[in-house]
Amino acid sequence: MAEPIDPETGKSHIRLFVQSPLAQGQGVPLSRDQTHYLKNVMRQAVGDQIRLFNGQDGEWLCRISRLERNACHLEPQSQTRPQMALPDVWLLFAPLKKARIDYLAQKATELGAVRLQPVITRRTQVARVNVERLQANAVEAAEQCGCLSVPEVANPLPLPQLISAWDEPRRILYCDEGPGAPSALAALKQAPPGPWAVLLGPEGGFDSDERALLRGCSFVVPVSLGPRIMRADTAAVAALTLWQAALGDWR
Amino acid sequence: MAEPIDPETGKSHIRLFVQSPLAQGQGVPLSRDQTHYLKNVMRQAVGDQIRLFNGQDGEWLCRISRLERNACHLEPQSQTRPQMALPDVWLLFAPLKKARIDYLAQKATELGAVRLQPVITRRTQVARVNVERLQANAVEAAEQCGCLSVPEVANPLPLPQLISAWDEPRRILYCDEGPGAPSALAALKQAPPGPWAVLLGPEGGFDSDERALLRGCSFVVPVSLGPRIMRADTAAVAALTLWQAALGDWR
Repeated sequence: MAEPIDPETGKSHIRLFVQSPLAQGQGVPLSRDQTHYLKNVMRQAVGDQIRLFNGQDGEWLCRISRLERNACHLEPQSQTRPQMALPDVWLLFAPLKKARIDYLAQKATELGAVRLQPVITRRTQVARVNVERLQANAVEAAEQCGCLSVPEVANPLPLPQLISAWDEPRRILYCDEGPGAPSALAALKQAPPGPWAVLLGPEGGFDSDERALLRGCSFVVPVSLGPRIMRADTAAVAALTLWQAALGDWR
Repeated sequence: MAEPIDPETGKSHIRLFVQSPLAQGQGVPLSRDQTHYLKNVMRQAVGDQIRLFNGQDGEWLCRISRLERNACHLEPQSQTRPQMALPDVWLLFAPLKKARIDYLAQKATELGAVRLQPVITRRTQVARVNVERLQANAVEAAEQCGCLSVPEVANPLPLPQLISAWDEPRRILYCDEGPGAPSALAALKQAPPGPWAVLLGPEGGFDSDERALLRGCSFVVPVSLGPRIMRADTAAVAALTLWQAALGDWR
């Protein structure tokens, strides 16, 4: 829960993600946590207006019609933005330690990834992935950054299982730290549009078996992200940026 | 101070930035903090080898020849990597709150920025910039990520002063959240090489006077980073990525 900043005025307004449909005449309940945030953190009252989005019906200006200790109801007034489809790109990433994985979920949301898929690799040093926490980070980033939808956070999968069950029309931009991969931008310029995923390895990279597995798949496009080593979370932002610029909605 | 990970083995090795010259037969002293780190954190002893770099003489494998409570001396053994020039790109950014500005300094270092210049804008909400702390973050990122040099962190400047004293051959890639700017990648494809800087506004963006000032400068290239609002630290990573991919050393 957070207040995004309006680029016109530099001021913030309140924006929340909800699961309910958004349409005129259809009241929307908030969760306990959201109610607490509105009432006690943001000091809102009945009659105040905030914005809601649900990933389906665009963004709506909604009026607080009831505000109690643990419950809040809003009435959608008018649609402020229509729903827009995001370019179809997923982020596949090896889980990182706490602060970095939170950051990764936030950044991937800002960059318009539609699905976040944790991938367990040989050198993954994080035993457990808190999917709910990642999802909460994605929701918060979407609320803050004016996104109209929230990426889905999937349950972790081991790399071999991910690859063997892969739905082939979707290509994988594989960020390869080994030698010989072409520059990401050059590869993307020649790549077809359609559904894609960006794949980042763990700190320390994929091992040689994993690299061979990936390089053997026809739907995998190995690319280089330049001559410097980057942290995995930096590389994820860089790869999603290049994808959006070359094939996504930054064109 | 940190251990970067070797992409071949997935193992880490110790790498430190020093101010001294690095050459065979020329002993190198470490600071108290570095000595403490080597001795007490990393449990190194006389005879162990670590890597040093200074931004001028490449990277050297060095042997610990003396290790006392508060002092350490190393003997450079052999150069492991020659010094390489970085593409000439600066990052100009409005100061952010603590965790985000630390992150920004680290990420800009990983992405090869050679100078970090804080810029005070009308909507900058951070009163004081801790230049030393930013510099320490840049050093740590360079040590971790195998960089051969560390960006210089400059003292903050107000935007009008920065612009009026600007050295014109250097162009500014200005990330403009307003309407009408061309996509960053399209603009960079048509842009000349040479020295550049990337300019990011504060959370909330530049105000209309600042935008007019920037758009009136012949050396400023306004660009858009796509249809979504991004946090300033995300936008910095995205803009440096696109610059490196289009004009820098990711080509």
